[in-house]
Amino acid sequence: MGNFSRDYSEIFSMSYPITAKYLIETSYDLQQAAEIMAGEQSCGTFLRTPGETDALREKHGAQVDLIEPIEEVSDEALPGARIMPGRPIKRAFVTLSWPFTNIGFNLPNLVSTIAGNLFELAPFSGLKLLDFDLPEDFNQKYTGPKFGIEGTRRWINVWDRPIIGTIIKPSVGLSPQQTATQSKQLIEAGLDFIKDDELQGDAPHCPFDARVREVMQVIDMFAQKTGKNVMYAFNLSGDLDDMMSRHDFLVKMGATCLMVNLNSVGISAVHHLARHTQLPIHGHRNGWGMLSRSPVLGIEFPAYQKIWRVAGVDHMHTNGIRNKFCESDASVISSIKSCLNPFIGLKSPLPVLSSGQWAGQTVDTYQAVESTDLMYLCGGGIVSHPSGMQAGVKSVIQAWEAAMQNQSLEAYAEHNRELKEALDFFGPKLK
Amino acid sequence: MGNFSRDYSEIFSMSYPITAKYLIETSYDLQQAAEIMAGEQSCGTFLRTPGETDALREKHGAQVDLIEPIEEVSDEALPGARIMPGRPIKRAFVTLSWPFTNIGFNLPNLVSTIAGNLFELAPFSGLKLLDFDLPEDFNQKYTGPKFGIEGTRRWINVWDRPIIGTIIKPSVGLSPQQTATQSKQLIEAGLDFIKDDELQGDAPHCPFDARVREVMQVIDMFAQKTGKNVMYAFNLSGDLDDMMSRHDFLVKMGATCLMVNLNSVGISAVHHLARHTQLPIHGHRNGWGMLSRSPVLGIEFPAYQKIWRVAGVDHMHTNGIRNKFCESDASVISSIKSCLNPFIGLKSPLPVLSSGQWAGQTVDTYQAVESTDLMYLCGGGIVSHPSGMQAGVKSVIQAWEAAMQNQSLEAYAEHNRELKEALDFFGPKLK
Repeated sequence: MGNFSRDYSEIFSMSYPITAKYLIETSYDLQQAAEIMAGEQSCGTFLRTPGETDALREKHGAQVDLIEPIEEVSDEALPGARIMPGRPIKRAFVTLSWPFTNIGFNLPNLVSTIAGNLFELAPFSGLKLLDFDLPEDFNQKYTGPKFGIEGTRRWINVWDRPIIGTIIKPSVGLSPQQTATQSKQLIEAGLDFIKDDELQGDAPHCPFDARVREVMQVIDMFAQKTGKNVMYAFNLSGDLDDMMSRHDFLVKMGATCLMVNLNSVGISAVHHLARHTQLPIHGHRNGWGMLSRSPVLGIEFPAYQKIWRVAGVDHMHTNGIRNKFCESDASVISSIKSCLNPFIGLKSPLPVLSSGQWAGQTVDTYQAVESTDLMYLCGGGIVSHPSGMQAGVKSVIQAWEAAMQNQSLEAYAEHNRELKEALDFFGPKLK
Repeated sequence: MGNFSRDYSEIFSMSYPITAKYLIETSYDLQQAAEIMAGEQSCGTFLRTPGETDALREKHGAQVDLIEPIEEVSDEALPGARIMPGRPIKRAFVTLSWPFTNIGFNLPNLVSTIAGNLFELAPFSGLKLLDFDLPEDFNQKYTGPKFGIEGTRRWINVWDRPIIGTIIKPSVGLSPQQTATQSKQLIEAGLDFIKDDELQGDAPHCPFDARVREVMQVIDMFAQKTGKNVMYAFNLSGDLDDMMSRHDFLVKMGATCLMVNLNSVGISAVHHLARHTQLPIHGHRNGWGMLSRSPVLGIEFPAYQKIWRVAGVDHMHTNGIRNKFCESDASVISSIKSCLNPFIGLKSPLPVLSSGQWAGQTVDTYQAVESTDLMYLCGGGIVSHPSGMQAGVKSVIQAWEAAMQNQSLEAYAEHNRELKEALDFFGPKLK
């Protein structure tokens, strides 16, 4: 938990160290609209109350820092807003800031403040949290990921390229023994990392403990034989006590990673797990589409990853480019970069690229994010390679070599058979 | 936790006891679209994998139960969807079902299954979870609210009308002493229930423990004098260990309710708290707008309240009619009713109506929901009453008497001065 006994007078004397940037859509005057947001999320209410003195407002009111108009739109994006008749509907960026004392060292309270009631305020036909910033001292209580990128690389001992991984499929239905058999094939194919599907938990047909036992036996045998320690992220999502005892079981069995479904488990439990964990936390974001898919409602990934980084998550799913979901490549790239960017001195979570990934996206991904500090998860792109899984893994590693050497995939494929086969086989299908 | 040692063979022999109903928007053939959802949320992936045998599909695949076409729309609601050229964009209700063994007794796993990746699937330009159902035996592990409506009424000892409450305002900025002073005024005015604002946590200017001490002194003194035990919901949202120790402190100090910001704290931590709590849990839903405000994305309240009911929340915020937010009255009424409806044998959470509530909405609310098992929170509608707060509380109680006696507010006001004053004063303002 870090040393939390020092003097924090400095943080409290900073005037408005917590800031958040929003996209808004409203027919109200922009200044008025922004002040309504600031009021709702600090000391205001819809009628000024007797206790809301000027002195209290001065000390605790959120502040409107910046309003950047973007455009006018013809129709309101979301229903239910109070529309000012005859006034244009405008979009703008709004930056608000808060004094630290309103929130204190309390992550859920921070989230309630920057992403609470305001989405429902009647003046707005759109409101999305884009990003936020905190005073660096927040890291004295919230120490963030214990392992992050370097810590994960140390477990796996892969340093000079992205970590290549895959997901056990089918998502649900395999027994522990079947999971281990599939793991053995994937490990022998040369993968660095394997994970449970997010739907796989502790279901009766595949109990957590039995799955861990069977899979770890395979991993340990391979490590003894080859020295390569494959990381497996076991999905321990569930009730808190169950998660804590599953964590302990993982440690006992020599596992090196745990996975948690962030949105379904929630911030306080993930943070609690992160404080106690001896293993990297692989954060799956299923349900994320609900929070993000509307362009004018919810939360953008740069803000979302900060919340989970503060909570202590080591790996963050970001999607990959040209994925099977509906997320644009620009959004994916921005998500990956946001994980790699520094934030209040906390370790960066390792971005996890997945969904329809194969050799084909490496060059474009590398050129956009300029980093190999990535986890690159492929499914069909490895297991369906025409020369088998091992060739599938090789094709992806070769494709990353091409990217890192600033070569085109086609040029590099001339001297790398597995990549050539992948391009010939998947290229026409996945274009 | 209930007795969890009995034989559950029955639940596993039920074919597809978990169902969920969605609104979808797609240009795909509806049957195909529904099957893609079912596949993604059970054993399928974008390419059929070797292990996905027919036998496994038969046993673990989610099933499409019902497709109910609604309408065609001219444009896709959300961006990013894969649109089939020349095909109409259709909306429909889709009901899916799952075998119990896919999920087991695991609430976060259930949420990942019914509300996980599917919001991002490319065929859909809209996807919203409307409702779901579970086998009754789920209540053997998840025992739901400990107190619910009757348990809350027992603490407060108000049985024949809604529980009338208010929220400390301004939201943040008051010291513990100032909070207690305001509480004293509100208690003496006749309120049954008071709560912290959702922005109030354990901030340095108003530490949790000091606030509890000061407020409980006021509550205890009033109880000793009058026999009336006012319930105060202290917002203990925060890190898990902090919440647990705040809970214990509340019990020690004789407090009778705790409040938690559901979305910012999350399911596993709220459930953990609920298992251990000796006090009713007042569930605030700030951030809810993010999940619900789009008509074609996210989750509807009937499903949302079931998740939190399973987690064990005793009071659920539902908004009130003619509120200051952008939620329609129809949506509010449906939310309130969903709390009052039975669900797998768990206690009903007490619906908490707030936002712009005063005497004026009681008759319409009662006619729509046909129940007084409600908590009715008023702010300005009580404290700004022209004859003072006590008259404000009286006006609201009188307005509920009118509703319960099937009288109009105007008729009842003829013999009830405080109600008359409220109608004259607030009526023109809040119409």
